[in-house]
Amino acid sequence: MSDAGKRPALPADWQSSVEGGELRIGGIPVRRLAERVGATPFFAYDRARITQRVTELRRALPATIDLHYSLKANPMPALVGHLAGLVDGFDVASAGEMKIALDAGMASGRIDFAGPGKSDAELRQAAAAGIVISLEGQGEPERLHAAGLAVGCRPKVLVRVNPAFDVRAGGLRMGGGAKAFGIDEEDVPAVLQRIAALDLDLEGFHLYWGSQSLDAARIADAQEQAVSAFLKLADLAPTPPRLFNLGGGFGIPYAIGDAPLDMAAAAGSVAAGAARLTQRLPDARLILELGRYLVGEAGVYVCRVLDRKVSRGEVFLVTDGGLHHHLAASGNFGQVVRRNYPVAIATRMADGPSETATIAGRLCTPLDVLARKAELAVAQAGDLVAVFQSGAYGASASPAGFLSHGAAPEILV
Amino acid sequence: MSDAGKRPALPADWQSSVEGGELRIGGIPVRRLAERVGATPFFAYDRARITQRVTELRRALPATIDLHYSLKANPMPALVGHLAGLVDGFDVASAGEMKIALDAGMASGRIDFAGPGKSDAELRQAAAAGIVISLEGQGEPERLHAAGLAVGCRPKVLVRVNPAFDVRAGGLRMGGGAKAFGIDEEDVPAVLQRIAALDLDLEGFHLYWGSQSLDAARIADAQEQAVSAFLKLADLAPTPPRLFNLGGGFGIPYAIGDAPLDMAAAAGSVAAGAARLTQRLPDARLILELGRYLVGEAGVYVCRVLDRKVSRGEVFLVTDGGLHHHLAASGNFGQVVRRNYPVAIATRMADGPSETATIAGRLCTPLDVLARKAELAVAQAGDLVAVFQSGAYGASASPAGFLSHGAAPEILV
Repeated sequence: MSDAGKRPALPADWQSSVEGGELRIGGIPVRRLAERVGATPFFAYDRARITQRVTELRRALPATIDLHYSLKANPMPALVGHLAGLVDGFDVASAGEMKIALDAGMASGRIDFAGPGKSDAELRQAAAAGIVISLEGQGEPERLHAAGLAVGCRPKVLVRVNPAFDVRAGGLRMGGGAKAFGIDEEDVPAVLQRIAALDLDLEGFHLYWGSQSLDAARIADAQEQAVSAFLKLADLAPTPPRLFNLGGGFGIPYAIGDAPLDMAAAAGSVAAGAARLTQRLPDARLILELGRYLVGEAGVYVCRVLDRKVSRGEVFLVTDGGLHHHLAASGNFGQVVRRNYPVAIATRMADGPSETATIAGRLCTPLDVLARKAELAVAQAGDLVAVFQSGAYGASASPAGFLSHGAAPEILV
Repeated sequence: MSDAGKRPALPADWQSSVEGGELRIGGIPVRRLAERVGATPFFAYDRARITQRVTELRRALPATIDLHYSLKANPMPALVGHLAGLVDGFDVASAGEMKIALDAGMASGRIDFAGPGKSDAELRQAAAAGIVISLEGQGEPERLHAAGLAVGCRPKVLVRVNPAFDVRAGGLRMGGGAKAFGIDEEDVPAVLQRIAALDLDLEGFHLYWGSQSLDAARIADAQEQAVSAFLKLADLAPTPPRLFNLGGGFGIPYAIGDAPLDMAAAAGSVAAGAARLTQRLPDARLILELGRYLVGEAGVYVCRVLDRKVSRGEVFLVTDGGLHHHLAASGNFGQVVRRNYPVAIATRMADGPSETATIAGRLCTPLDVLARKAELAVAQAGDLVAVFQSGAYGASASPAGFLSHGAAPEILV
């Protein structure tokens, strides 16, 4: 028992989801959930947690802000369908995501399509659907004009801006400097002229400065600069912009010890920016687009221990999971420094002896580690492992075909 | 014209595959190939190059060596079918790969199944198929025994050994120290006793020390140590081993400037090891298992430029490809230092002006770069981009579902 204190805590939100020594997801004991799925591994997304996150965020944001969900974080149709009833719109990045968004029942005028490489076919589909297209390629205004002619409608556009300011918000930088994304701020006037000449329907502007920031002060700084850029751009637009997409950037903590984002502070900075915009353009619609922040913490990847192995004094729990399902948890998806996701032996959650063990995937490569030297309950073959913070950039962002084990089922509970 | 010299050379093997300023794959101009596929991006694997690589390697190896292909490098069924006629056996790492290997017509006794996490279902399937199973889990002898009883046959096994020696062969280390792979060398005697007690059919031993080494001297060193370990282990076996799988480890050059592996020297070290083994055990079958080395250089990933964009003085070629098809080329699959794969504008291969350009994928993430600041022919929207060295760990090792653009077709030409 003396070792129990060494075991790292679950993510705080999950501590109340343990009963009888077993993790519950969506109120269901994990062993029973595995029987219901009929196989391990699987991803389980907890709808109540998603609802709760959106509700709390709504409470922190002013009513003038429209909340959008970005499907790239998790495009599972049932999850997108659940979010369709919670948020005001969707952001999509491909024709495939557009289909999921429309199938979920979201109104086309509340779907934005952004991405640096849109094909002619995608532009035609988007124009035909009547969704809003973020222009960012240099050839896109002309290609979209042709697409609009082909399908017989006037495309609605945002200009996605690559700002002149330098973004220092932590996480992934997607604005400032030379970028494949957006139109450089200084080139926007020329693009606005082309949009007018081509008779595209200019809705407004889009600025996405980055993602996965845990620093509310830096988010505030980026938001303030984005709003200042929007106010300058509004002066250049031939008609008053009706829509501003402020981007997102709210991050979630992945490693034990990461402090979560201060939601109130981050939402407050969005509110402050919104106030500046609505003072000048009272009728404009303002969008905050979030992906991972809405769903990432609601998901758990569950796999099963196939073999407990002690090699030269080190304990390895070899599971039926691996990087083919959860590349980011293995630390191999663009991470510079590998840090463990929060993990637990989901079938041994009661206090008790613990040990240091490495959770390995089943693939025949040394890259396939789900947690390196983690402090865990002593597990045996048959036990279930939970990898938390797995609701975003998990199943869809992993090489499911690698080694031909097949994809993991996903369930919404 | 003065800039032309700055453009990096193609991989040497491809220089003769340019005609009329256009790259040919399998003798077919790349534009025509794209029309035949009906879409970009795609992966094209050149069967003549695969045949040539196997032929050259066969010539360098003694006839006593059986050459195996490891499906994990590229499991495309047509490619595996082509290799079925060229090599002596296959190595598989999952029930999915086992199916592809058997469908390709390989004799079951010439298929080895290895991997740290084999499920009970996979063990039953492998036993039923009569393939050779590399034991490496601590519970595997008992589980395989049960599987054999369930399907009514006596499973054939190798003992996969995690050697006591420290492997320093460059590339990915898979042996030495504490590992999820194999049975620690010092624990092999106990496992041999269990194998005998459980009446499993011991074929021999398997030792896989690592992969992707370009250093023939280090490969020689690892091979020599592996053979010494095998000779010690042979003394411990209750009956003379009939099979030794020597692993592989032959690498291919990914970055411009990497010197290719000295095939003659690497094959020579395998031959030397084989001589030591056959001197002692003249009837044993010896296996060299290679994946990437047989197919990696025969494959090209082809994508199309959707937009040429100049952002703050830097040129971006935004393509319809990306890391969802080719994660390794984007540098995000476990690489510590990002280096460009060899790339070219496949539709502008004649000498001419060149420029420094970044080839971006179409995904809305800054991780999605196929080549950063490469020296390339000046390309426009519509041009085709070739990413070489893409025949292994490409299509199957990438997150095809990410952003819902869909997988890239694969063709064997």
